[in-house]
Amino acid sequence: MTTIKSFSQLTDHLSLMASKPKVAVVCPYDTDTCEAVFEALADGLIKAVLVGEKGKIDATHIAAKFPDSVEIVDAASDKDAAATAVALAREGKADILMKGLIGTDTLLHAVLDKQNGILPPGNLLTHITVSEIPGLDRLIFYSDVAVIPYPTLEQREKILMLDAEVLRRFGIENPKVALIHFTEKVNPKFPNSVDYQTMVGRAQAGEYGRVTVGGPMDVKTAFDLHSAKVKGITSPVAGHADLLLFPNIESANTFYKTMSYFVEVEMAGALLGTSVPVVLPSRADSASNKYFSLALASMISAR
Amino acid sequence: MTTIKSFSQLTDHLSLMASKPKVAVVCPYDTDTCEAVFEALADGLIKAVLVGEKGKIDATHIAAKFPDSVEIVDAASDKDAAATAVALAREGKADILMKGLIGTDTLLHAVLDKQNGILPPGNLLTHITVSEIPGLDRLIFYSDVAVIPYPTLEQREKILMLDAEVLRRFGIENPKVALIHFTEKVNPKFPNSVDYQTMVGRAQAGEYGRVTVGGPMDVKTAFDLHSAKVKGITSPVAGHADLLLFPNIESANTFYKTMSYFVEVEMAGALLGTSVPVVLPSRADSASNKYFSLALASMISAR
Repeated sequence: MTTIKSFSQLTDHLSLMASKPKVAVVCPYDTDTCEAVFEALADGLIKAVLVGEKGKIDATHIAAKFPDSVEIVDAASDKDAAATAVALAREGKADILMKGLIGTDTLLHAVLDKQNGILPPGNLLTHITVSEIPGLDRLIFYSDVAVIPYPTLEQREKILMLDAEVLRRFGIENPKVALIHFTEKVNPKFPNSVDYQTMVGRAQAGEYGRVTVGGPMDVKTAFDLHSAKVKGITSPVAGHADLLLFPNIESANTFYKTMSYFVEVEMAGALLGTSVPVVLPSRADSASNKYFSLALASMISAR
Repeated sequence: MTTIKSFSQLTDHLSLMASKPKVAVVCPYDTDTCEAVFEALADGLIKAVLVGEKGKIDATHIAAKFPDSVEIVDAASDKDAAATAVALAREGKADILMKGLIGTDTLLHAVLDKQNGILPPGNLLTHITVSEIPGLDRLIFYSDVAVIPYPTLEQREKILMLDAEVLRRFGIENPKVALIHFTEKVNPKFPNSVDYQTMVGRAQAGEYGRVTVGGPMDVKTAFDLHSAKVKGITSPVAGHADLLLFPNIESANTFYKTMSYFVEVEMAGALLGTSVPVVLPSRADSASNKYFSLALASMISAR
C-alpha cells in the first residue's frame, strides 16, 4: 500500500474503504464527541452505535441524518453503558470503542474486567499518539503519554511491537524507532539507556521483525540530522524517526503538551493491546483531535 | 527595576551597566564560542579573560580589536586551563566561567574540586535555562535540563530557591512557578506529585519567600488558561508560569529539545549554585545560544 503521510491522506484512504468499522460510542452526551462522530459519519469513515441513556443522547439529530449507519443502544447508567459497549466489542458487533462523557475509570473498569473485558490475558495495555507536524514529510507516532508510566524492558518491547504494527497499517513497512533519552550515552546510572542498548541489539538481531531501532537519542536528534552529526550519531533513525518511544510518562506528556500548545499540531490517540482499539480522549482534547482519533482507530481496526 | 521580558531587553540593560562582568573563557578554540564572546564584547556586555594554550587562541584577532577589555592567560593543557580559570573565579578575578572547546568533565572536575573548586559546601549545583518564545509576553525559565536527573524534595526546594533568585534579577519580584507533571492529580503512586503538594503548602506558608507555586500541572496548563479551566485548575500559576520545574531530566530535556527544534526559540543556560555562574553550552548549541547564555550569566552575576 501507499504510505499514509498526513491526516488528510488518512481520511481519504478510509473514506474509500468498502467496509466501515463500527464505533461503539460510550455516553455520547458532549458536543465535542458528537461533533467528531457526526463528522466521521458524514465523511464516510465509520458506522456508529451510540450507547447511553436515551434521554441524554441527541438521537433525533444524528440518527435521522444517518439512518443506515447509526444505531442507538439504551443503557441505564454510565457503568451500564460501558459494560454494554464492551460486550458489543467482545461479540464482534463493534470494531472500536470511544469514550464520550464518562469517567475514564468507569470505562477502563469495563474494558479491563477479567471476566467480561477486552484485554486478552498477557496483553499489555498501552497508548499510541500520532501527530501531523507542519514542515515534516511524514506522520510522527509516539508512546506512551497515558497508560504505562515507567515501562520495564519487557513493557518497552511490547509497546514497540504494538506500535510498529500500527505503523505498518499506515504503510510504513520498516518503521524507524527512536528510543528517547536526554543524552546519547549509555550509562548504568540511567537504566533507560541500558534497556535501550539491549533493544537496539535485539532489533539488529531481528527479534522485533522489520523495524530499525536507534538510541538512546534526544528528541531533537530524532528529527535533526545536523544535531546527530554534531554528536557523532550515525544511527539511520537519527533525523528520520517515525516512532518515538519515551522513557517515561513525564517526558512523553511533555512532548505531547508542548507540541499541542506551541506547535499547534493535529493529534490523535488510541489505546492498544485490547481486542479492539479504544479512543479515550482527555477532557482538554479538541473535537478535531477526537475526529482524527476515530480515523486512527479505524485504520488500526481495518481488515 | 523594570522587568526584563525579552533577550533584546536583557542585552540593552546589560550594555548600559557601568561595570562589566569579566568572563573567563576556558579553551576558546572553536568558532561558535569565539563568535559569541566577540559579539558580547562588541555589544559592551562583558570583559573577557581567554584562558588556554596560546597557540590555539586566535588572540591577535580578538585582543587587537578589544585591547582594553580582553586579557589572555596561557595554560599548558585543557586541565590546566580549567584549573586556572576556576582559580581566577575563586580569587574574584573572574565573575563568570564559560566552557569553550574542552570536555565538560574536565571543566566540571575543576569547578567541583573540594579544595580548589567554586561550589561552596552544602550548595547544590543545578542548571537554569531561559527561553524567549514567540507569542509570549515574558521570558520562560526552567530547570533542570542538565545536572540533577531525579531531584529529591530537598533538591527541588534548592532548585526553586536558586532559580527564583535568578528571576528576581530579571525584575520578576514574585515569580510564578509551575511544578510540572503529566496530570494535575496528586497520587502516592507518583512521588513527584506528593513532593509538589508539599511544596505548594510550604510556598503558601511563606517558606520560600516571595514566590507563587502551583502544581502538579502539565506543560500546557502552565501556559494555557483554557486548558486550566477545562481541568478545573484554579492556581494563579496556571496560564501565567514564569518558571517551570520539571520532575526529571528526561522531561526537562524533552521540553528543551522540542522547543529548540520545533518552535525555534532562542535559549540560554547557566549553572547555578557555584560562587560564579558557569556557562556550559552543549555541542549542538548555536553561537546565539552561547551569546545569550553569556548575557544570562552576566545578569546573574551583576552586583
